[in-house]
Amino acid sequence: MTEAEFLAALRDLPLHAGARGLHDDGAMVSGLVITTDTLVEGVHFLSGDPPGDVAWKLVATNLSDLAAKGAVPEGVLLNYPLSDRAWNAAFLEGFGEALRHFACPLIGGDTVSLPAGAPRVLTVTAFGIDTGAPARSGAQAGDALWVTGTIGDAGAGLAIARGAGGPAALLARYRRPQPRLAEGRALGPVVRAMMDVSDGLLIDAARMAVASELAVTIDLAAVPLSPALIVWDGEDREARLKAAMAGDDYELLFALPAGATSPVPATRVGLFALGNGLTLTDGGEAVPLPSSLGYEHRG
Amino acid sequence: MTEAEFLAALRDLPLHAGARGLHDDGAMVSGLVITTDTLVEGVHFLSGDPPGDVAWKLVATNLSDLAAKGAVPEGVLLNYPLSDRAWNAAFLEGFGEALRHFACPLIGGDTVSLPAGAPRVLTVTAFGIDTGAPARSGAQAGDALWVTGTIGDAGAGLAIARGAGGPAALLARYRRPQPRLAEGRALGPVVRAMMDVSDGLLIDAARMAVASELAVTIDLAAVPLSPALIVWDGEDREARLKAAMAGDDYELLFALPAGATSPVPATRVGLFALGNGLTLTDGGEAVPLPSSLGYEHRG
Repeated sequence: MTEAEFLAALRDLPLHAGARGLHDDGAMVSGLVITTDTLVEGVHFLSGDPPGDVAWKLVATNLSDLAAKGAVPEGVLLNYPLSDRAWNAAFLEGFGEALRHFACPLIGGDTVSLPAGAPRVLTVTAFGIDTGAPARSGAQAGDALWVTGTIGDAGAGLAIARGAGGPAALLARYRRPQPRLAEGRALGPVVRAMMDVSDGLLIDAARMAVASELAVTIDLAAVPLSPALIVWDGEDREARLKAAMAGDDYELLFALPAGATSPVPATRVGLFALGNGLTLTDGGEAVPLPSSLGYEHRG
Repeated sequence: MTEAEFLAALRDLPLHAGARGLHDDGAMVSGLVITTDTLVEGVHFLSGDPPGDVAWKLVATNLSDLAAKGAVPEGVLLNYPLSDRAWNAAFLEGFGEALRHFACPLIGGDTVSLPAGAPRVLTVTAFGIDTGAPARSGAQAGDALWVTGTIGDAGAGLAIARGAGGPAALLARYRRPQPRLAEGRALGPVVRAMMDVSDGLLIDAARMAVASELAVTIDLAAVPLSPALIVWDGEDREARLKAAMAGDDYELLFALPAGATSPVPATRVGLFALGNGLTLTDGGEAVPLPSSLGYEHRG
């Protein structure tokens, strides 16, 4: 049973109105935006990853979902499997750093023991004050597609974490992602649709198009690359495509009416139109779609 | 690092006011009572347990925490590790039965993949509308300690699930616990302190006494036993002590002022007094405390 099949089965259960049909990353209950992410050792992080970075990422990925809703973090729950003393201590240090950095207190949680040798499974659930930002489904034909920051740095950071040489700045983008909370709050009132880029620019843009029942074209030449990434991997079409297919950016992807400018630093990378599907261009020239757009079933 | 040591370390982190210092099973945020429980295969349930019962229990244990807060269920989040098709389907069936039975819709969640052979780790987070019921810390000297329903049935059910012969009714108390939601709502306005009995009557009563900074005496002769349990295990002191040390009852334990009567069917089993510690009697005769009061570190 794939994730999509399981989700389809869940949709047959009694759903809360705030669940938005399970089509969005955040639910809305009593004025709160609620989102939850589970990370699994050996799937979402490596056994050798620094525990403090795992903690940071667990908090940051959830807060990125709040950022995509323009929400103000209210707090988090932690479901934690007790482990050896050193791992616990290092995890707690990174967890505390993240809570203080993002001004997001701990609300509660649960600790459990795992059978010996079992991979760690960690869950954070984050709560934010709803500010009324739209869902990912509100883009309209003619809207421009924008993205904050730069794309592909975390993908390079993952390669560096796996042993490829490269600068610490790219590794940090992978290990200590920075959710765009302030940008999300500023964008909430003006965007037509917004989500975070977690699985890759191409696949997440395609998802926004599907949710909005539109087609979208992305211009690879416009995809913003960092100077560090350009030094590391160049900026030809292949490098741009690789960046646009890499995950873990945690930038914000949003739709603005034609002619509108973004209130926060961001780059216009595409255009919505009637129809459906994703089209790629490179400075006006059509580019064939890769067979896979990004990380599809990591969960 | 024990659960208590980890919790102590968490208390050094920035805490939300609604976290109540992490001393309670439920947190309070924006008018919602929030509680979360993680169940681990091989720790909290057996690999051979029917998946539908695991699902039911996962929902029911969380809703029991809401019941203890007199809260009205608003919905749940599910963090689920995708598994083989048969397990997924059976889990979904029990999960749906529980949501419909308790009129508690699904709000959202996350699905993940586990490495091959990893034990399942499942989390449910439940939300309820806060009705202002007190915490477990409000008991006063002279208050009586009461408990709903009967005690020890689920403990007998666990023994039956492990192969001991016994009636289906006791097994059902273990496999399909019934959180006391209606009773919790009726009790909320009149009790001084309330919690659910999840780890055993003795240990949970001792926890309420610690939270309230009081001593508590429990009369074993008053502990309510079901007719089925009496047939299965007798009703002598040993049987009563075993029942009072067994977990998974999911009854409500509460403090009422002396002379007050319970608005729902319940039994007076003890008395709070100045001081600290748990004392046992059996019809007036002092009974030595067992070395362990119940399930301490299951998490």
